[in-house]
Amino acid sequence: MKFTIQKSYFLEGLNHVSRVIAPHSILEILKGIKLELTDNKLILKASDSLVSVEYAINQYIDDKEIITIEDEGQVVLPSRNFIEIIRKAPTDFIEIEKVSNNILVYSGNSEFNIKGYDPEEYPEFPVISKDNSFKLDTKIFNDVIRETVFCTAPNDQRPILEGVNLSLRNKILTATATDSYRLSRRVVILNEENSEKEFNLIIPRKALQYFQKMIENGQGEVEIFYENNRIVLYYQNVVYTVLLISGNYPNTDKLIPTNFECTLVSNSREFFNAVDRVSLMSREDKDDIIKLIVSENSLEISSQSKELGSAVEEMNVKSMLEDDKFEISVSGKYLKDAVNAIASEEIIIKFSGELTAFIVQPSDYHRDIIELILPVRTY
Amino acid sequence: MKFTIQKSYFLEGLNHVSRVIAPHSILEILKGIKLELTDNKLILKASDSLVSVEYAINQYIDDKEIITIEDEGQVVLPSRNFIEIIRKAPTDFIEIEKVSNNILVYSGNSEFNIKGYDPEEYPEFPVISKDNSFKLDTKIFNDVIRETVFCTAPNDQRPILEGVNLSLRNKILTATATDSYRLSRRVVILNEENSEKEFNLIIPRKALQYFQKMIENGQGEVEIFYENNRIVLYYQNVVYTVLLISGNYPNTDKLIPTNFECTLVSNSREFFNAVDRVSLMSREDKDDIIKLIVSENSLEISSQSKELGSAVEEMNVKSMLEDDKFEISVSGKYLKDAVNAIASEEIIIKFSGELTAFIVQPSDYHRDIIELILPVRTY
Repeated sequence: MKFTIQKSYFLEGLNHVSRVIAPHSILEILKGIKLELTDNKLILKASDSLVSVEYAINQYIDDKEIITIEDEGQVVLPSRNFIEIIRKAPTDFIEIEKVSNNILVYSGNSEFNIKGYDPEEYPEFPVISKDNSFKLDTKIFNDVIRETVFCTAPNDQRPILEGVNLSLRNKILTATATDSYRLSRRVVILNEENSEKEFNLIIPRKALQYFQKMIENGQGEVEIFYENNRIVLYYQNVVYTVLLISGNYPNTDKLIPTNFECTLVSNSREFFNAVDRVSLMSREDKDDIIKLIVSENSLEISSQSKELGSAVEEMNVKSMLEDDKFEISVSGKYLKDAVNAIASEEIIIKFSGELTAFIVQPSDYHRDIIELILPVRTY
Repeated sequence: MKFTIQKSYFLEGLNHVSRVIAPHSILEILKGIKLELTDNKLILKASDSLVSVEYAINQYIDDKEIITIEDEGQVVLPSRNFIEIIRKAPTDFIEIEKVSNNILVYSGNSEFNIKGYDPEEYPEFPVISKDNSFKLDTKIFNDVIRETVFCTAPNDQRPILEGVNLSLRNKILTATATDSYRLSRRVVILNEENSEKEFNLIIPRKALQYFQKMIENGQGEVEIFYENNRIVLYYQNVVYTVLLISGNYPNTDKLIPTNFECTLVSNSREFFNAVDRVSLMSREDKDDIIKLIVSENSLEISSQSKELGSAVEEMNVKSMLEDDKFEISVSGKYLKDAVNAIASEEIIIKFSGELTAFIVQPSDYHRDIIELILPVRTY
């Protein structure tokens, strides 16, 4: 294995794949990045055994030669140190040569001899059948992840809730996440060619977070291949293979209320800032409880802390009420997360009772997104 | 106590004084910030009991009314939450009113009732006599701190080495710090009016770091009052009172070698970058050992790690040698710290033997600064 490569492209790929590496992996070799040099490209591989990523750098990009290939080959290198060595290399082009399992790195007057792992010991990535797939606009996929992944349950809860439930049926793609105190659901209608496809998968949070980081300013489409226990995501020059969470995701349809005794419409930013201020007094308590009191076209937001004191703020809203007044207690953090996820200028909040889950949505319903939050019982 | 204050000035002061607060102070009240409102200014106070700071906000700044004073008074508030409340306040001017030990904060439609501490319980700051003082240009004082404080010993060593030794005699102000493996010394000649003054103090690292943060882009002069066991630093509207470390600082003059068998002159940036690259292979070892081999107008820098591999880099330097070759082993980190502290375009390094301390200085000696580093014995 011997080649010369342009530093910036190499570094971008290395930084990218290294994100999935678990620095304290029990499998020593998974702390490494695998380089596979073929006759026309360099493939970088990394894995934490649940999520595996392959990143291809083509020899030519826009007719420029990025890689000068002398000899093909494979090598596995300790990721952190190798990336720093490339990052600090003094020249634009870097020469790399394999000698047994080590590699030599030449850049200007600097020369490194880096101990590698035996590439034969690096696990093969699983191969998935190409029978079933669908395509999704990258920006929409990015939104779907951003809007749901924050509602997955933290690690110490039921494994099934640590992922996002992605299902497709009758062209309706539904992403759902819940930690059992709140729920977020985004629905996207796919085009006609997907009308026969059907699946119901649970994708681990961590895999989606890695993937979102890559596509957050992305373009074009993502192609998703699916099987029972894994999916493969194709985006540009990158392939993610993800082991799914097995089990049956709970049916959450029946949790969403349909009758409301109070609704309010508010500017999102003003609402967020008021909740943010008031929760300065509640955020250190476990439940972060703030109280909302809706009356005619007015909302009072307040909090109380034995230690710190109290806060109250009034704001104008558009409201519709059955009675004179509606009161509810809720986590300030959950409210803020919901408003952030919705990311629209105005929100509508629909309450069906003091002790039942309520809904937060964009006031113009321009995206099919629903945030459901359970109130806190304060007595 | 009742006043209205412009948010930006208030916040700047609060952020400033809060830096010295130890969040886990055993004295509960020292987690607070004290506000003292007089008839023409607001004074903010904070302390970790070793370092105390007072920050004054005048009622008028450049003829603009910053504070509208209704009633004088004193209050002590929990720092972290209070600062966040002010930071997130929606209006430019904020109204504050004391009710028993609590305060009410009004801004727009938002209202906070914050529990405070009893201001009577807040410790009085020590008063220092104004008999002895000297003045130093703020930029020079900033340099003096920056150039020495990094060489103080970490917390687990001799307390006396955890501070910077500042002495004045015959107008010569000397700042020295050493962790016993390396030493940094900066000398400043004061003007005639200081010829009778004399002191020899040890200032704790932490106090100097706080103070440097404030003056790092500062102007004008700092006035320093000194007594046996404390100093007070005046800078603009801020007063720092610092409890000194007691004891006799070791005499370090005799450590500095005067005969050299090898010297080299190098561009600082090139030297730093080469050491930085080579130490990628050594930095994870406790001693971070890199080897320097000086020969005629050439320097070879190298490192070896059992686990990671090796690195070597050649560079052109100007050298003067007694023999054909001079070899020495040294901590890469110490070398980089020394070059950073010197901050000049070129450095000169003067070696007096393989096992004795060597000197790093600016090649043009434009500042009286000396960095001394002990080599590492590798056999």
